[in-house]
Amino acid sequence: MENFVFHNPTQIVFGENTEKEIGEHLANFAVKKVLLTYGSERIKKDGLFDTVIQSLKAYHIEYVELGGIVSNPLLSKVYEGVNAAKAHKVDAILSVGGGSVLDSSKAIAAGTLYDGDVWDFFLGKSFITKALPIFDIITLAATGSEMNNGAVVTNDATHQKYYIMAPALYPKVSIINPKLQSSVSKEYLVYSASDVIAHCIEGYFTATTHPTLISKQIEAIITTVMDTTEKLIANPNDYNSRAEFAWAATCALNGFTYVGTAGVSYPNHMIEHALSAICNVPHGAGLSIVMPAWMKWYYKQNEAQFKRFAKTIFGRDSAEEGIEALTKWFDKIGTPTKFSDFNIEEKTLPAVIDNAAGNAVYFGMGDVYTKEVITEILKKAL
Amino acid sequence: MENFVFHNPTQIVFGENTEKEIGEHLANFAVKKVLLTYGSERIKKDGLFDTVIQSLKAYHIEYVELGGIVSNPLLSKVYEGVNAAKAHKVDAILSVGGGSVLDSSKAIAAGTLYDGDVWDFFLGKSFITKALPIFDIITLAATGSEMNNGAVVTNDATHQKYYIMAPALYPKVSIINPKLQSSVSKEYLVYSASDVIAHCIEGYFTATTHPTLISKQIEAIITTVMDTTEKLIANPNDYNSRAEFAWAATCALNGFTYVGTAGVSYPNHMIEHALSAICNVPHGAGLSIVMPAWMKWYYKQNEAQFKRFAKTIFGRDSAEEGIEALTKWFDKIGTPTKFSDFNIEEKTLPAVIDNAAGNAVYFGMGDVYTKEVITEILKKAL
Repeated sequence: MENFVFHNPTQIVFGENTEKEIGEHLANFAVKKVLLTYGSERIKKDGLFDTVIQSLKAYHIEYVELGGIVSNPLLSKVYEGVNAAKAHKVDAILSVGGGSVLDSSKAIAAGTLYDGDVWDFFLGKSFITKALPIFDIITLAATGSEMNNGAVVTNDATHQKYYIMAPALYPKVSIINPKLQSSVSKEYLVYSASDVIAHCIEGYFTATTHPTLISKQIEAIITTVMDTTEKLIANPNDYNSRAEFAWAATCALNGFTYVGTAGVSYPNHMIEHALSAICNVPHGAGLSIVMPAWMKWYYKQNEAQFKRFAKTIFGRDSAEEGIEALTKWFDKIGTPTKFSDFNIEEKTLPAVIDNAAGNAVYFGMGDVYTKEVITEILKKAL
Repeated sequence: MENFVFHNPTQIVFGENTEKEIGEHLANFAVKKVLLTYGSERIKKDGLFDTVIQSLKAYHIEYVELGGIVSNPLLSKVYEGVNAAKAHKVDAILSVGGGSVLDSSKAIAAGTLYDGDVWDFFLGKSFITKALPIFDIITLAATGSEMNNGAVVTNDATHQKYYIMAPALYPKVSIINPKLQSSVSKEYLVYSASDVIAHCIEGYFTATTHPTLISKQIEAIITTVMDTTEKLIANPNDYNSRAEFAWAATCALNGFTYVGTAGVSYPNHMIEHALSAICNVPHGAGLSIVMPAWMKWYYKQNEAQFKRFAKTIFGRDSAEEGIEALTKWFDKIGTPTKFSDFNIEEKTLPAVIDNAAGNAVYFGMGDVYTKEVITEILKKAL
């Protein structure tokens, strides 16, 4: 077990009707005016927007709207948010939506208190030392952004899907009401399951040091996600499964599954970010295409852990059977495992490979993940 | 899954040599003078005291000593600490020791900023709204106090072993160096294992709502504790097992294993506190006596969860077999499971039962845990 520091100061407020308390939480931090970020206008039809506004008004909190944030969120929108936050002198960001809205909000929060170009942070040209306080109502369980200090944004000019991380980016308060997540489509449910599993397996398989307790905690999350995904496909209104799915998603990337590890890398995310950036595939769908391919290419480098995975998750005896079982499970729930499942044509591959090779350098894995290696991996997903 | 709020702001600094950084952590919080609390004078012989003082001096932090805190820590010592902290106008408490030292430090931290009697907080006559900032170097893995907001102290005048909880009692920074825990005796290692398992099973068995993910996370902790205890008995210098044991102990009571639950109670602690208060049994030893007895009395009220426990922890099929297997495991590692194992005579029982019945009222369980019921439970430990 390696030395580590763990410090996650986010307050989680979890459960039914908790979104109605947002005004109170903001008032506890003396917030007077927020930039209210969201995605589609759907939240104005389903009542969530009104609920939030009512709660803000009850605490005399002003708001400025920034809607229209899309999946695989774009830097251009972040710029728009930074300009709005500066112009209106807001003192916090309130994100109402999924991980894309929250990630954009984190970038806006950092960019607002910075004189330079917010993209500098993504390129490592400058480091985030401060950010506006971030609050959120998370409406999709997947990215774990509600309890971590990271954010991923795509530069629409350069097609670079890059990330930022900094202590200042932990949300102050995150509201998770599983009921608000019940309206997610079956497609986005299964993509989310894939995303959560990807967060689990990156560290689990790539770490050179991986405490057994952490392996067990990750296995608890994976089996919970698999079980609740199947229950939610059968009955989208199963509140308890929705709640366990939501909390499992949060636990998968809040830092607890990384303590004491060493040598963790994120090859699946690195390759998937290229797929998202070039083909605009939903992140979770891209991950379920990449994971089985990467696993087949990689497993002999850590066969004992792959055998453990096969045994504990699927009751199988070999690494190969474990990978096959996971692939079949992805097929069963309906998230793609091959390019053809998502109508991505082979002729797109060279652009994806080029982009992924750029990511590999960015992720600090350029030595291992050369164009040749990425090609070899992606060919397993044809 | 029930609604919940989770907010654990403690910063954990884990690993070898981390105690050398204590001065820096205090300086980060602008601390100038600490009350340095500890237990026996052993820390002056083994070098830990000197290491701490060197680090304090490097950051020009003054200190006032309060040594001599004992297991099952006493209110009289807390009073002494409150007086010292007030007289010397310290601005933080630095606890160097196990859970007893840290729990005393938490009570001192709250008492120093209170004009009344600190025992008021334990009696619920007053509520803790503020406390001096608390820092610690934890030298025994057991109580989980290093990452929670609770503390237990015994009133030496009344023999009441009572507790306090408040957000202000979360340590600011907790340093966990597993190497510092290597010198613990075999007895205290196995008592600690019992304590951690008790923290795991109270919620696991008593909750009326218990999310499956939480059950799995608890099982991960229990099996890790069992495995690493055996390894540490065989080889006390096995750093990796010491580290996993330490982190498992922290995870067992840092709030994560209680999210989304309902109806949790602490009957084993309630009864054990009476044993500690009357017979001065080490807390973990008392718990391994109480747990099997309580389980035998209780299991039919939640047989499905007891069957789950039997299956996942011991591979057994019935609730009874699971209880028997746990008892045998306690016997195997050498923590007592019967009064006679610890030379507690039957004639002591009435005083223990009286005290436990008082605790039952204090814990809000007086309706269920009458003197008759407590007698019935304790007789199973004869």
